[in-house]
Amino acid sequence: MSNYVYGKNSFFEAMRARRITMAYVLDDKEIKNSRIPYKVVDRKTLDKMSKSGNHQGYLAEVKEFRFASVDEMIVEHNGLIVILDGLEDVHNLGAIIRTSECAGVDGVIYKSHNSVKVNDTVAKVACGALEYVKVAEVTNLVNTIKYLKDKGYWVVGTDGSGKDLYTDIHYDMNTVLIIGSEGKGMSRLVKEECDYIVKLPMKGQVTSLNASVAAGIMIYNIVSDREKTH
Amino acid sequence: MSNYVYGKNSFFEAMRARRITMAYVLDDKEIKNSRIPYKVVDRKTLDKMSKSGNHQGYLAEVKEFRFASVDEMIVEHNGLIVILDGLEDVHNLGAIIRTSECAGVDGVIYKSHNSVKVNDTVAKVACGALEYVKVAEVTNLVNTIKYLKDKGYWVVGTDGSGKDLYTDIHYDMNTVLIIGSEGKGMSRLVKEECDYIVKLPMKGQVTSLNASVAAGIMIYNIVSDREKTH
Repeated sequence: MSNYVYGKNSFFEAMRARRITMAYVLDDKEIKNSRIPYKVVDRKTLDKMSKSGNHQGYLAEVKEFRFASVDEMIVEHNGLIVILDGLEDVHNLGAIIRTSECAGVDGVIYKSHNSVKVNDTVAKVACGALEYVKVAEVTNLVNTIKYLKDKGYWVVGTDGSGKDLYTDIHYDMNTVLIIGSEGKGMSRLVKEECDYIVKLPMKGQVTSLNASVAAGIMIYNIVSDREKTH
Repeated sequence: MSNYVYGKNSFFEAMRARRITMAYVLDDKEIKNSRIPYKVVDRKTLDKMSKSGNHQGYLAEVKEFRFASVDEMIVEHNGLIVILDGLEDVHNLGAIIRTSECAGVDGVIYKSHNSVKVNDTVAKVACGALEYVKVAEVTNLVNTIKYLKDKGYWVVGTDGSGKDLYTDIHYDMNTVLIIGSEGKGMSRLVKEECDYIVKLPMKGQVTSLNASVAAGIMIYNIVSDREKTH
């Protein structure tokens, strides 16, 4: 991951999180009273530094992204950890990290040799959420899932073959939510570790939702179900 | 909208919907027993026709997209119409159309002079759902909302200022769901037409969800709420 973030949202989130080491802006009106070091540059420079990204006049050099450990995500009661099994689209990863932050998810885990990983595009799509959500890369998802089960977590996967509707079970338990890949869903070995496999109602001809939309529906249902229970 | 669709999902959805007037493929294995007219072409031709899009070897000339009228979306009982108020991103439009199709939404409406409208990218992101969802362009959203209210619809908008949580109200009524724009939410005039303004719980530092994720959460909550009620 290069150490730049750009775009207004990402820039000001990085500023609030005190991660900026040097800012590059078209206009210093909104940052001159902050304590961050900055340089006013021209549009051409920002275009080049952001590789023609949509920088909106704001780019910052930031401290390297710090991955979390799985242990840092474990809580005593009603935890929620999201595990991504083979996600392929960086926009989906960014959107899922954003949703996770909004919903107060304890952490997001994916396989380190995955086709997607945290990069500048993910940071941009996540709209600053990357500064606040714990993200862990692990080498073996199945071992991580087994470890979390040992720690008292229940594993919920989503699949069209599921017996129960996603709203049929109650989530007042430490929960690991598995999100499968865009095309193929969960891998077989991960699926075998699920305590519950649930499905979303599909009433049309198209048989699957966008992965980040499905993740959002599942995550918010878990959060809302807990608010009703307690 | 040009009359091409490409990519495997979009291609086969168009085929099932009998909208293809001429297909262009790298390999005719999967279509030679269908009754559609086709030509086998080389990769360069497909790259050019799809403007370097991710065609996956499949491109089709299709009948022009047929917009629906608002009246076609009106049902007697427990209808659900999604109105997009100023959406700006074609990927969000495509994802919302896909979610709407999966959830059995009666139709999607947006303003005809909007920044986004149905095009090839939307068709691709919608993964074929555009063939099945009714989509209407209207010139005046507020008038359309007033018309639907006259027809017995209740209008629900989402906004951080909402008094009720989105799960606090019951949706066993003909419902119009308003999805605001990515940056600014609902416009003032549309907001004034809402019978209910609800909010999604926000537990983090980032204060808004991606528009297509928020739409997915709202739409699936309405569908699930109705299944529980009946």
